[in-house]
Amino acid sequence: MKHLLLTITYDGTGFHGWQRQPGQRTVQGELERVLSILCRDEITIAGASRTDAGVHAYGQRAGFSGEFGIPVEKIAYAANRLMDKDVRILEVVEVSEEFHPRFDAKGKTYLYKIRNCQEPDVMLRNFHYHVEKPLDISAMQEAATYLVGEQDFRSFLAAGGKEPETTIRRITRAECYLEDADIVFEVTGSGFLYNMVRIITGTLVEIGLGKRAPAEMKTIIESRDRRRAGHTAPPQGLYLKEVYYEGELADEN
Amino acid sequence: MKHLLLTITYDGTGFHGWQRQPGQRTVQGELERVLSILCRDEITIAGASRTDAGVHAYGQRAGFSGEFGIPVEKIAYAANRLMDKDVRILEVVEVSEEFHPRFDAKGKTYLYKIRNCQEPDVMLRNFHYHVEKPLDISAMQEAATYLVGEQDFRSFLAAGGKEPETTIRRITRAECYLEDADIVFEVTGSGFLYNMVRIITGTLVEIGLGKRAPAEMKTIIESRDRRRAGHTAPPQGLYLKEVYYEGELADEN
Repeated sequence: MKHLLLTITYDGTGFHGWQRQPGQRTVQGELERVLSILCRDEITIAGASRTDAGVHAYGQRAGFSGEFGIPVEKIAYAANRLMDKDVRILEVVEVSEEFHPRFDAKGKTYLYKIRNCQEPDVMLRNFHYHVEKPLDISAMQEAATYLVGEQDFRSFLAAGGKEPETTIRRITRAECYLEDADIVFEVTGSGFLYNMVRIITGTLVEIGLGKRAPAEMKTIIESRDRRRAGHTAPPQGLYLKEVYYEGELADEN
Repeated sequence: MKHLLLTITYDGTGFHGWQRQPGQRTVQGELERVLSILCRDEITIAGASRTDAGVHAYGQRAGFSGEFGIPVEKIAYAANRLMDKDVRILEVVEVSEEFHPRFDAKGKTYLYKIRNCQEPDVMLRNFHYHVEKPLDISAMQEAATYLVGEQDFRSFLAAGGKEPETTIRRITRAECYLEDADIVFEVTGSGFLYNMVRIITGTLVEIGLGKRAPAEMKTIIESRDRRRAGHTAPPQGLYLKEVYYEGELADEN
């Protein structure tokens, strides 16, 4: 029995999110379909993160176990040839039996891309959040600093979402920077609540537009009240950049 | 009776090209559908260029005539609200009765985007030609200079394509430049043969890979033989950037 860890990239546009659902095209479903063919066995994979419909990934991780004939180093190439071009396995490594891609994750990094210019770009409509009015990036960056630390992030938990055991998470990095015509919000943390990055981004956009002061981010966190935070930014701008484990720490963390 | 000229941008991924075809989603078909609703009349539009399936446009042009109640300045906004987000009317202007968007075009500019790096990017798979091996951009630029001028470009006419009246065209600008991780080939001319830009690009790629010398571009043109030129680059990298008319000359031309 072998235990494998996959690194996967996908364009979320054509998927109903990560999680397998009968009758829907999902990333998990597509990978399981192809790996089951290759391994001649019914393969079930466990993803590190359940990304929503429309959300993209540069470095999703998923694990699976099985007895199979094909050599480990051939799996990515063979699987990629059987899949549509909107999902690609980038790497396959062997891990120990005890390893679990979700429970053993030490943290994740997400990017959120905001196109901040007047002209819409139809080519990129599925890959960013288009904000026409000018955003004050330094105000957004100031607001982002309040996110860092171990805090209760209940204010950014989607209303009506299922209640997690705890809403305390540790954010180790939160930065807004300019990349070409895009403002990118990059955030690394021990874990994220459902819709947390999109609600934080919506709040940052309202701060960037001057509708709220940067320091309001602090009072929003302290309020532990979803109604105090901003709108939920659309899924098209969100990217799961990286999931990291013990010994492969994201950036400086 | 009013005569209008539209400027249009579209992501060609989800279209079977520009030209109306029964039972297929095309850009012309989609625009005619929406304009017919708005104008309460059966609208037929004439495009400046018949882009192929998968080819994109930043500045396609198309004209139509009709008697209709809606003010000209409202047409773009109203039409855009009725269409999917992969096509947008950017501008609508009134023109004279004699004006024809195709026959009056003085020239066109196309871009061809080549992603030249090892890592594929699933997000951008429909928006460039991915070439993994390093391309020599200065060799490509040198080869491009041989394209400029009034010449017979029969070597770049798709084999089996319909025979045009003449294969002589005037290229006023042909340049390769670097833009982020992309090599962009930008070409402006009085007109282009069917698949001409894609065949030129395929030839430039072979030159960039060192398979052919830059000066071979000159002998390929002179041969007037499609078999001497390179492969046809895929449609996903091609963009109709601009169609220009008398008095709105592209760049320095």
